[in-house]
Amino acid sequence: MIPKSANDRYTIISADGHAGLACEDYRQYLDKKFYPDFDKFMDERNAHREEALKFNYDYIMDWETSNEEGLKGAFDPAIRDKELDADGVSADVLFADADAVTGMAGPPFGAGLFAGAIVDPNLAFAGAHAHNRFLADICSVSPERRGGIALVPITHGVEESVKEIEWVAQQPGIRGIMVPTMWRNNTPYNDPSYDPVWAACADANLPVHTHSGEAPLEEYGDSTGVYLAEVVWWAIRPSWHLLFGGAFERYPNLKFVVTEAAAYWAPDLMWKWDQYMGGGHTTKKMAALLKGKISKLPSDYFGSNIFIGASTMSREEIRRRYIIGTDVVMWGTDYPHPEGTWPHTEDKLKADFVNIPVDDTAEMLGLTAAKVYGFDLDALAPIAARVGPTPTDLGQDPSLMSDPNERATARWWKEEYGVKAPG
Amino acid sequence: MIPKSANDRYTIISADGHAGLACEDYRQYLDKKFYPDFDKFMDERNAHREEALKFNYDYIMDWETSNEEGLKGAFDPAIRDKELDADGVSADVLFADADAVTGMAGPPFGAGLFAGAIVDPNLAFAGAHAHNRFLADICSVSPERRGGIALVPITHGVEESVKEIEWVAQQPGIRGIMVPTMWRNNTPYNDPSYDPVWAACADANLPVHTHSGEAPLEEYGDSTGVYLAEVVWWAIRPSWHLLFGGAFERYPNLKFVVTEAAAYWAPDLMWKWDQYMGGGHTTKKMAALLKGKISKLPSDYFGSNIFIGASTMSREEIRRRYIIGTDVVMWGTDYPHPEGTWPHTEDKLKADFVNIPVDDTAEMLGLTAAKVYGFDLDALAPIAARVGPTPTDLGQDPSLMSDPNERATARWWKEEYGVKAPG
Repeated sequence: MIPKSANDRYTIISADGHAGLACEDYRQYLDKKFYPDFDKFMDERNAHREEALKFNYDYIMDWETSNEEGLKGAFDPAIRDKELDADGVSADVLFADADAVTGMAGPPFGAGLFAGAIVDPNLAFAGAHAHNRFLADICSVSPERRGGIALVPITHGVEESVKEIEWVAQQPGIRGIMVPTMWRNNTPYNDPSYDPVWAACADANLPVHTHSGEAPLEEYGDSTGVYLAEVVWWAIRPSWHLLFGGAFERYPNLKFVVTEAAAYWAPDLMWKWDQYMGGGHTTKKMAALLKGKISKLPSDYFGSNIFIGASTMSREEIRRRYIIGTDVVMWGTDYPHPEGTWPHTEDKLKADFVNIPVDDTAEMLGLTAAKVYGFDLDALAPIAARVGPTPTDLGQDPSLMSDPNERATARWWKEEYGVKAPG
Repeated sequence: MIPKSANDRYTIISADGHAGLACEDYRQYLDKKFYPDFDKFMDERNAHREEALKFNYDYIMDWETSNEEGLKGAFDPAIRDKELDADGVSADVLFADADAVTGMAGPPFGAGLFAGAIVDPNLAFAGAHAHNRFLADICSVSPERRGGIALVPITHGVEESVKEIEWVAQQPGIRGIMVPTMWRNNTPYNDPSYDPVWAACADANLPVHTHSGEAPLEEYGDSTGVYLAEVVWWAIRPSWHLLFGGAFERYPNLKFVVTEAAAYWAPDLMWKWDQYMGGGHTTKKMAALLKGKISKLPSDYFGSNIFIGASTMSREEIRRRYIIGTDVVMWGTDYPHPEGTWPHTEDKLKADFVNIPVDDTAEMLGLTAAKVYGFDLDALAPIAARVGPTPTDLGQDPSLMSDPNERATARWWKEEYGVKAPG
């Protein structure tokens, strides 16, 4: 649904949002036998918050008191819908860990964005399942507006993961799974032993996600800059393990989405990957070793198997949209995280999309997400007609459409290197 | 020495070359007590070659027989000089592991490009020292043409590393050290416990290097594509561990060079790093944690502390030269590796530098390397006058000089984000 006139409304589907209970409230969703472990987890959480308050008190207090009501949308669907409406958003995708400030709305045992750091498989699955039960509850209210992303700690057991995937696939509004960003000492994602997981996700049309957050913190000491410099890479890393491990060949319906890890890196990564396949001079000695693993050019898996939930993308990423692919990259508000655009999404969109063609805007703000997650655009139409911004709201020229030639030639290396799909 | 006319010659200093004995010949440089370990190492090497021959026989045989004489320049300085001359190169930088095809010219115990994988510190230092003794020998012949990069396995002992650094600093023609690309289970490079190493290198003006090659192979199974997709990152990674760990603040003379890991990544990396420091909206919550670690914008460390030995850089990297910095990025032939430009360097330069201004060309092909490594351009002048290519040889317009404004505004994010050095 590309706006056809200045006052037609965009259907915004935010590909990055978060939902979660206050930690303590997850107890009701947790098997009783884990209560002693949960008590220990709560002590750690509370100590962590005290620590955070020590050196960032003003920032934390300001955020929490100015947004007290809106933050409750993390677990209350009525409040969530009110916040989405006010922000111009028709539907959103729900990852775990709603509190990115002091981590007080995360699933038991850190089973959300830091699931790879859990050592005990029982705790990993118990925490994930508690969150998934909560997620099924919140997604059951207006499921057409929800894209719940269930937690599945696949590094801790393939068989149990498949069972969890089969359960979440039955829950209305759950539209994907998130796996641990890091496999740590467990099996890397290029390994075919994960095939039952990929098969289950491909069958159920549940895209597999990583979401930035986890990184080897134990290596960083007090160097926060190192964390910032690396965190995105760890979230993107699984994409090439799946690709070059052949998972998309064996399961052509399998989708992988990397979320809130930006998108600026995609053009260079596609260029270099395609170049390996092209067997140019510098990789000639490798060519023999690459045969048979993949059948298309690596860049051709973007938009069919690999997608990017770039959240509040930068202007430079918007400028690179044809190389990245408007059928690949998806906007997200990151609600209710403070680094996102909520509750000022329209201002941000106006600032950054003012000169962007309406068809490109419609794709990046919603149409691509609708395809990836199977949102029903007809069901969302009445909501969009009520809350979505218009091209006029974004300061756009409603007659500006993309140039097909600019789209087709954006991946410049294809011509410069003459790369072709491997035989 | 920027060519002033069409027939003035460039002083090419290749920032990436390799030197090494046939494995077995390192025995003479090795302490006798390591002979039993060395016998085991040789058995592994020979088995590895047999394995490689099994599935890449034609490629390997073709390379080795067509280049039989030239490959001896890896250890014979007279042959090396002849090959450099014929390739138009006045001087080159010498890393370990001269045989990139089947690994038969590597130092004992894998102490070269894969040093991080060694478990026993005694073997790590013994292998490194054996290579350094050989390196001192080859660099002692025409040291003005050599930039030997000594091996120092700093992850295996700081005190012993400082001793090795002090020894290599005395050897004519040795101009840098290489550290393990991966620290694996040892201390990460952001940790201040490495300060004595950085101090010794800063004092002796020995730039610290990583060189691509090592990666966590144990995680890749038979997925060669995964190796290709990651190998560069592992080599670059130490740069931000040093930067954000504050090493360049404590040792302003410390230089870090990442070699044969391309250069295309530098612009985006500088942009994102500068953005963290700028404390923009998306990193606001991090700003408080970054104070005090560094005093300049991250991009400002490039050209003073961080350099890139990009080897046979791509045209796209040449196009990005002002963002990367012509005072940062250095050409290299990778002699005598098959993925390099030897013995056809002039052809490659002609193809890729034809439209590039002569001052930029002079910097990237030699002047930046002269500064980083302290090569004496006067001593090289007679060699360059004999062997260097001219602008005419490269098809260049000798009057084409760089545009100062284009240089000054290349790092576009500085204006778009209004980033400033942290207080």
